[in-house]
Amino acid sequence: MREIIAEEFKRIQDEICAGLELEDGGATFQEDLWSHQHGGGGRTRVIQHGHVIEKGGVNFSAVEGRLPEFMRERLGGAATSFFATGVSIVIHPLSPLVPIIHSNIRYFEANTGECWFGGGIDLTPIYVEPSQASAFHQVLKATCDQFDSAYYKEFKRWADDYFFIQHRQETRGIGGVFFDYLKPNDSKNKQDLFEFVQAIGRSFLKAYLPIVSVNKALAYTDDQKKWQLIRRGRYVEFNLVYDRGTRFGLETSGRIESILMSLPEHASWIYNHQPQLGSPEEKTLLQLKKGIEWVTD
Amino acid sequence: MREIIAEEFKRIQDEICAGLELEDGGATFQEDLWSHQHGGGGRTRVIQHGHVIEKGGVNFSAVEGRLPEFMRERLGGAATSFFATGVSIVIHPLSPLVPIIHSNIRYFEANTGECWFGGGIDLTPIYVEPSQASAFHQVLKATCDQFDSAYYKEFKRWADDYFFIQHRQETRGIGGVFFDYLKPNDSKNKQDLFEFVQAIGRSFLKAYLPIVSVNKALAYTDDQKKWQLIRRGRYVEFNLVYDRGTRFGLETSGRIESILMSLPEHASWIYNHQPQLGSPEEKTLLQLKKGIEWVTD
Repeated sequence: MREIIAEEFKRIQDEICAGLELEDGGATFQEDLWSHQHGGGGRTRVIQHGHVIEKGGVNFSAVEGRLPEFMRERLGGAATSFFATGVSIVIHPLSPLVPIIHSNIRYFEANTGECWFGGGIDLTPIYVEPSQASAFHQVLKATCDQFDSAYYKEFKRWADDYFFIQHRQETRGIGGVFFDYLKPNDSKNKQDLFEFVQAIGRSFLKAYLPIVSVNKALAYTDDQKKWQLIRRGRYVEFNLVYDRGTRFGLETSGRIESILMSLPEHASWIYNHQPQLGSPEEKTLLQLKKGIEWVTD
Repeated sequence: MREIIAEEFKRIQDEICAGLELEDGGATFQEDLWSHQHGGGGRTRVIQHGHVIEKGGVNFSAVEGRLPEFMRERLGGAATSFFATGVSIVIHPLSPLVPIIHSNIRYFEANTGECWFGGGIDLTPIYVEPSQASAFHQVLKATCDQFDSAYYKEFKRWADDYFFIQHRQETRGIGGVFFDYLKPNDSKNKQDLFEFVQAIGRSFLKAYLPIVSVNKALAYTDDQKKWQLIRRGRYVEFNLVYDRGTRFGLETSGRIESILMSLPEHASWIYNHQPQLGSPEEKTLLQLKKGIEWVTD
């Protein structure tokens, strides 16, 4: 089944690249094929200096390897090697009015047969627009609801907890959904979980493009651009300090350029930057908190 | 004695700020006084948008606190609280021809009486100039040699090992000296070690200003500026992924703005950037390796 999953993930990568290129209208993805030292490899696709996207990546990989020690312990000691496949996306738009987006779908299998799915989509607006935040979450909820009425609430909270910059006490953005270790059980078999993960992968364009499409045409100021660079600095802090995928990749000698394509072309750190009271920047900061309910029934 | 050490560290902070302001000729340091939640505090001094320095900090702190669990274990279980004082410096010049510099001197004491000194100075040129790298290391060696003929060799190697970006397999810069856990013993008492650490603190201006003074007047190109932003990106990677002081600060809820003043105002990540063969950028990369002997007797 792992081949079927990997093939489907590649199709999702293709669809997302095509949708983003169309929306960008300027640049196209450049592909780098690479091999993993212990088996398998990936196709990293990077888009740069487009009309809308300053830098973005939509990466597919399917690799085999020996399990690091801490993973063996987690798996009860018997497993020694793994297969993992996934699609990872990070888009850094040029305009501060178009949000950064991140998404990931993944499948993991140990040589003992134990396996699970993970994934998610989350949005990092430079300026939070409540109506767009709601629409974004609504798409994710609708996707989740097709599979399990408990999913959205659970995975939305998981995203709030995961995409949290502990040392700043702020969320990276307005969250979305995040899930991991979804294992086949009595109520959902492997095929059910696979279909859910595909649906999440395919909701990416539905959730993101309507926002891009409206906001990409808006004019912005130098001050808004400056705020974007500061927010991107926070994005870098999250990815390098907390993100498990990034740290796992750095520690297990993954392909560095594919892992760190998640970092923006330009980012900025200003000492003790404090937005003015009542400014749009301050309003955004006040919405970078856990537990905001963007979808109300 | 801890008060004497802290007072001397403050004087060193004063001297370094005065020396850097004079060399900059444009901006002055702005001071923020702050208190630590469990006792003590610091004086963070930041300089921004000067003629030479784009962003820099020279921070003094003297704090007390409860020991985190892993530190208690390291200290044998009896110690429960600590006192720590130090001066930390990071300077990010505007010109890509003026190197980034970092230095730190510190003293740590557990409530059991166990204590040690640490510190170091290291240089991160955007373009490595061998003669300047040698002169820099020569100042550090001369300082070390006044105290122990074994110090320079040992602490130079320690800097090579410490300031290493594992996932890039490159050193952050050309190193310098780095040392930690220097404890009083039969050959050196506490006063000896304190004098050595003061000498390291006071060699900062001697090692750095001659390079700044020559290079600050040189014209530079847009391409050199672009390379600087990429090298600063690596600096951010090192500090957020590996630097023990940064990670300790983030995990123990230190004052975030003082800890992260080490990050540059602007940094950049370009997907799969490879300097041209034979270019000055490639020559620099080839010198970002461990074990280069910059001082030959």
